[in-house]
Amino acid sequence: MEIKVVRKVLDANEKMADQNRALFKDKGVFVINVMSSPGSGKTAILERTLSSIMPEIKTAVIVGDVSTTHDADRLAKSGAPAVQVNTDAFGGDCHLSAHVIENVASQLDLDNIDFLIVENIGNLVCPAEFDIGEDVKVVVLSVTEGEDKPVKYPLMFRVCDAAILHKIDLLPYLDYEKDLAVESIQKIHPDMPVFEMSAKTGDGFDAWIEWLKQQVSEKLNK
Amino acid sequence: MEIKVVRKVLDANEKMADQNRALFKDKGVFVINVMSSPGSGKTAILERTLSSIMPEIKTAVIVGDVSTTHDADRLAKSGAPAVQVNTDAFGGDCHLSAHVIENVASQLDLDNIDFLIVENIGNLVCPAEFDIGEDVKVVVLSVTEGEDKPVKYPLMFRVCDAAILHKIDLLPYLDYEKDLAVESIQKIHPDMPVFEMSAKTGDGFDAWIEWLKQQVSEKLNK
Repeated sequence: MEIKVVRKVLDANEKMADQNRALFKDKGVFVINVMSSPGSGKTAILERTLSSIMPEIKTAVIVGDVSTTHDADRLAKSGAPAVQVNTDAFGGDCHLSAHVIENVASQLDLDNIDFLIVENIGNLVCPAEFDIGEDVKVVVLSVTEGEDKPVKYPLMFRVCDAAILHKIDLLPYLDYEKDLAVESIQKIHPDMPVFEMSAKTGDGFDAWIEWLKQQVSEKLNK
Repeated sequence: MEIKVVRKVLDANEKMADQNRALFKDKGVFVINVMSSPGSGKTAILERTLSSIMPEIKTAVIVGDVSTTHDADRLAKSGAPAVQVNTDAFGGDCHLSAHVIENVASQLDLDNIDFLIVENIGNLVCPAEFDIGEDVKVVVLSVTEGEDKPVKYPLMFRVCDAAILHKIDLLPYLDYEKDLAVESIQKIHPDMPVFEMSAKTGDGFDAWIEWLKQQVSEKLNK
């Protein structure tokens, strides 16, 4: 019985996600959905990403958190329009749904945006199940988190199109087997690009920005 | 409508949690529920905890993960009975429910156990909503995760009885304001004990073990 209810929620979400996707296509906006555990450094990555691509690429950001506007405040400093969604307003939801994105997108000037970044709520489980109408899903995995997260949270790594292995500046201080982590990602999702980087030092950042720009331009030239 | 359905699920969970609690009381088993983000080091803390309290305290462990038996395999090396629950068997649930604990507890020899540790699924949102019949809830926060997690995920820190600030051995390599993190915890839950520790080096571990032993003995002497 419970499964039926969940199925219904996911079906409704899927329908709304398709509507969002059609709207973004119509407006010529490329959308990525960035997901990870809490504290993997999503916001730091996006701060550095925004300063690398703005103003060349007209970008806006939607940030999800259960509570606080900390992350949107940080990202708004880039000059990009940044909207914070707090899910504690509707029961403390553990993910962003397509309906929430539809609601927030209507407040953005989509005609003047080429690229929309959605920073999802820190959670490796539920956000993987909720399509929001994005073009590309990206998962961030911090090297402080343990090498086996991909096999422990397989759906997240299966549905994503790229992975960021983050905080590599900390590797000298950890007993972390980086090759094992990459192997674990590829076991779940063979051939998915993995960007090893540190938003703090900038190491490995160029490859990520290059990939991102290519994704945006491919979409916008369609 | 959706909220009504969720409410029903939570009510059913609450009823089962009360049954679990009555069973554990009857059997003289003290139960803790350990929660955190993925990769905060719950399993490392529990490995060291088990080696500090066994065989003095007869302990068993239930470990929740979406997939794999990695953590139960690690904890079973202590000699404690360790049961792994994989929620991908029932839709990839993002938390352990009271019903799951009831099911697994029936497979444990509760007459020969004084202390049951439940390592929940790595997630700072959903597990906070699901009582499993435990005596005490503990949240682990790694210093790699950012100081503002307590205010971003307030319910988790509100419902817990103690917090562990983990991986303090990494502090010299991070721009982390530890006082700010403790302040953030206390803003949400004033007077909650906070154990600053590293399972890797053992720093700060004694205070945690002392607190834990006191909790167990208080329950068992009732």
